[in-house]
Amino acid sequence: MVQQLFSPSVQHTLDLVGIFVFAISGALLAVRKNFDVFGIAVLAEVTALGGGLFRDLVIGAVPPAAFTDLGYFLTPLLAALLVFFLHPEVERIQAGVNVFDAAGLGLFCVAGTTKAYDHGLGLTASAALGLATAVGGGVLRDVLANEVPSLLRWDRDLYAVPAIVGATMVALCLRYGVLTPLASGLAAVTAFVLRLLAMRYHWRAPRAWHRRSTVREEQPPPSAPAPGVPDRAGR
Amino acid sequence: MVQQLFSPSVQHTLDLVGIFVFAISGALLAVRKNFDVFGIAVLAEVTALGGGLFRDLVIGAVPPAAFTDLGYFLTPLLAALLVFFLHPEVERIQAGVNVFDAAGLGLFCVAGTTKAYDHGLGLTASAALGLATAVGGGVLRDVLANEVPSLLRWDRDLYAVPAIVGATMVALCLRYGVLTPLASGLAAVTAFVLRLLAMRYHWRAPRAWHRRSTVREEQPPPSAPAPGVPDRAGR
Amino acid sequence: MVQQLFSPSVQHTLDLVGIFVFAISGALLAVRKNFDVFGIAVLAEVTALGGGLFRDLVIGAVPPAAFTDLGYFLTPLLAALLVFFLHPEVERIQAGVNVFDAAGLGLFCVAGTTKAYDHGLGLTASAALGLATAVGGGVLRDVLANEVPSLLRWDRDLYAVPAIVGATMVALCLRYGVLTPLASGLAAVTAFVLRLLAMRYHWRAPRAWHRRSTVREEQPPPSAPAPGVPDRAGR
Repeated sequence: MVQQLFSPSVQHTLDLVGIFVFAISGALLAVRKNFDVFGIAVLAEVTALGGGLFRDLVIGAVPPAAFTDLGYFLTPLLAALLVFFLHPEVERIQAGVNVFDAAGLGLFCVAGTTKAYDHGLGLTASAALGLATAVGGGVLRDVLANEVPSLLRWDRDLYAVPAIVGATMVALCLRYGVLTPLASGLAAVTAFVLRLLAMRYHWRAPRAWHRRSTVREEQPPPSAPAPGVPDRAGR
Repeated sequence: MVQQLFSPSVQHTLDLVGIFVFAISGALLAVRKNFDVFGIAVLAEVTALGGGLFRDLVIGAVPPAAFTDLGYFLTPLLAALLVFFLHPEVERIQAGVNVFDAAGLGLFCVAGTTKAYDHGLGLTASAALGLATAVGGGVLRDVLANEVPSLLRWDRDLYAVPAIVGATMVALCLRYGVLTPLASGLAAVTAFVLRLLAMRYHWRAPRAWHRRSTVREEQPPPSAPAPGVPDRAGR
Repeated sequence: MVQQLFSPSVQHTLDLVGIFVFAISGALLAVRKNFDVFGIAVLAEVTALGGGLFRDLVIGAVPPAAFTDLGYFLTPLLAALLVFFLHPEVERIQAGVNVFDAAGLGLFCVAGTTKAYDHGLGLTASAALGLATAVGGGVLRDVLANEVPSLLRWDRDLYAVPAIVGATMVALCLRYGVLTPLASGLAAVTAFVLRLLAMRYHWRAPRAWHRRSTVREEQPPPSAPAPGVPDRAGR
């Protein structure tokens, strides 16, 4: 067992915060897709718990934490209720929600990598599962909402790369036996800040060279940079 | 081990009936989506067995029942063949199929909750898995068919709520140690009747308050009530 | 433990070849869908490893091979890089890629059936898991790309049937205790050749009798053949 990032109770609180903000993003998409209250709750649960559920199934930690910790199960319902009753208000503070979501990304990539390593996986596999923990819920959310996962789209600000950096930092610390709480915290903060910067400056990842895509080029979203500046993605 | 709802052989027969009607619903969607005979069989299998498969993976009951009981595997193939050869006839008795589907919903939410509890999960988690057992196959069916899961759509009659009620009744009985076969049967019948009523009176769940949806409002389906009656969903 | 199809190191090399060509098909779809470099890598990983991952979760072989063998994880990344930089060239040799993909199909249906049987599953369940190993990655690829799985579509050349034949041959050999390396190889080659023939002669599976589909009949894609010239689009 590697050292905990924080004391157990602090870690648990941080987990719940991460779960809550992820659930908010699921519930908001459900409202945009015109789902009913039950669909809002399902999408909140899936977004918040899907990544950790996948990790726990892969490492054989059954029943998964999502089904053994009542707080993990109830927190997304709380988020769903909030969005159900206060949808416009929550939309209005979307920028704030995004900051918390970035924090969840940072915490989950670190916690996921650490838990996978604790269960005996190799360093690369642990980092991959850390990434899956952080982004898996969002992918499931988009699949259930019948949309192309925003994780995969070129016209979205970098989301996975900050998590990859954080998970890799944890894996390197584990490799050299220096995963102190401080190092864990540093990895989480790095992923968090990278994600904030990616949103601020609309960092994008490049698409394939010389591609001939069959997909209509989509217009940049309203928040995208002015013509001329866009898409620093290596073209 | 809690008491069985019915004697093992009766329980097994009921399971097969539930699997059969769920498979019919999968096969019918496959025909509507223009899939070939193989696609019909896959969608039948996934719809019938997906919910239980998810539950068994979560509680660590591997290999899952879907892969150890030959009857579970062959029954959906039988349903697929029936729909393949007799598609118009099966469509014509759709109302009858829906009644059986409601029965499957009732049986599976009870059986799923009980099995999860037997494997050591808490009451809330057991009820959640009972719900997942009952509705999971239908969600997988819609995801594979590239449609928004009908479970999540506001313009569909209540489907999850009856299962939630049934699963909650079982969990309460487990809590107070009174899960007799009679109580189990009552929970299954309650879910069954609630689903029938939801279909008969087009009960819907409410959508978020003050939402501004980006999704075009869809027309009510032909079976929907006349203008003025619609959508009892609290508006 | 049944006899290995080949010596362990040869088997491992063949696995990596199969993983590589499956990953190529995932990466090519990602480029067509306009995903960024990260989306290309994710789709390559999921396509290559998804089928085996599902099999390992079902038989309880956790952590799955996809997360314990570094070569399994890195090979799809190599394929993603290749497609990222050399997309037009890889597209141009699509016919060659399809031949390798057929080889992967043959190898994986045999290896999947054998591994499931080794873990104590019945013959029918083992064959079903062999099929799932061979085709599961492609289904996950299409679901993530928000497309109807090509496995289920009537307007695609037979893909599952060759794998079903191969898996059934292995199951029959297991049943009669004659699964020699020669028999395994024969099953893999049979599936391989059947898939090649299906592509060459555009074998399709029938759709339901007397269906009244609600789906518009799709036109053959622009790249589709004048009769006689094959649809290299494979899947």
